Amino acid sequence: MLKLFYAPGTCALASHIALVDAGAAYETVRLDFAAADQRKPEYLALNPKGRVPLLVTDRGPLSETPAILAFIAQSFPAARLAPLDDAFAFARAQAFNSYLCATVHVAHAHRLRGYRWADDPAAIAAMQRKVPQSVAEGFALIEQSMFEGPWVMGEAYGICDPYLFTIALWLEGDGVDPARFPRIHDHRRRMAARPAVQRALAEQGTPR
Amino acid sequence: MLKLFYAPGTCALASHIALVDAGAAYETVRLDFAAADQRKPEYLALNPKGRVPLLVTDRGPLSETPAILAFIAQSFPAARLAPLDDAFAFARAQAFNSYLCATVHVAHAHRLRGYRWADDPAAIAAMQRKVPQSVAEGFALIEQSMFEGPWVMGEAYGICDPYLFTIALWLEGDGVDPARFPRIHDHRRRMAARPAVQRALAEQGTPR
Repeated sequence: MLKLFYAPGTCALASHIALVDAGAAYETVRLDFAAADQRKPEYLALNPKGRVPLLVTDRGPLSETPAILAFIAQSFPAARLAPLDDAFAFARAQAFNSYLCATVHVAHAHRLRGYRWADDPAAIAAMQRKVPQSVAEGFALIEQSMFEGPWVMGEAYGICDPYLFTIALWLEGDGVDPARFPRIHDHRRRMAARPAVQRALAEQGTPR
Repeated sequence: MLKLFYAPGTCALASHIALVDAGAAYETVRLDFAAADQRKPEYLALNPKGRVPLLVTDRGPLSETPAILAFIAQSFPAARLAPLDDAFAFARAQAFNSYLCATVHVAHAHRLRGYRWADDPAAIAAMQRKVPQSVAEGFALIEQSMFEGPWVMGEAYGICDPYLFTIALWLEGDGVDPARFPRIHDHRRRMAARPAVQRALAEQGTPR
């Protein structure tokens, strides 16, 4: 059975929602970042990156949200979570998720994980000050030129939607008013009302 | 015909090599970053991100290296650049490319593009100082736990190889001795000897 390693409040929520959307049989394993579970030898043996999400399959472990989401879509084709028979449309979904992963999530990470890129406390504080701007720029680009509506890629709900939802949940914490992005804000509300999202959030419990 | 927008010395080289590997018919358009070509209205109309690579197809433009590489592999299946019939193996390749995109390339970008994440010149200098460490950590993880050999994903050459090669070309500039990573260093040498790589580099000309 698929096993998802996650921590509450992280981007692992996107893969969790997609597993529910797919109708997959899965179990979850919660890591406690406060206890540095992700740095313990038994977890590093599975995922040397020491991060989440990690999806353990019967073939072995998979990391990286864009790869996990595509794997779920391809493994459960009946759920129609990606345009599997259209290389261009599939690549467009991959490009959207890559932008979330490599630009928007990275901008966000400069608020709490600045130590990855500088050692000087003043530099880390300077990074934190820019997060509201850099995160807002990413969401502005999505709002204006990527989001098709009503779902990210247009009429069909798919693997871009739980990922956008997950990262959009961080907006207030990043000092960005989601009302600046009406289409993304409305998408977040509609996502939050979906039973699959409510199930994943309930299974993850309250962030600690 | 496919049209690749690139600038010399950027990650667009990975997509360029893959187009040659695929046997695709393509043309290239060189952007001059020194002249801010990537910020001109005619380019932003194609790619609002103002970055490279961009692959313009008969269906429209595609950005993000991991998505472009997967698109090339799926569009030219005879070239066998990805395990298209094996969702898990395909996801492993996607995960590798996502790690290059969202972690290793991002670490590198803190050397010349620190202004994306802080405004204070002292903070930008602090980021630059950490680049040799953060880039080396990414390559160490690849060397120790991701690189299968002789190619990135094992016996079969594929879309991970030109991407690793491209980013490994930046090691010296990032202050990292490639000899610290013998398998990646050897891979870089073998890649540089491939006719497809030599053709792409020749088509791109000397970085300016």
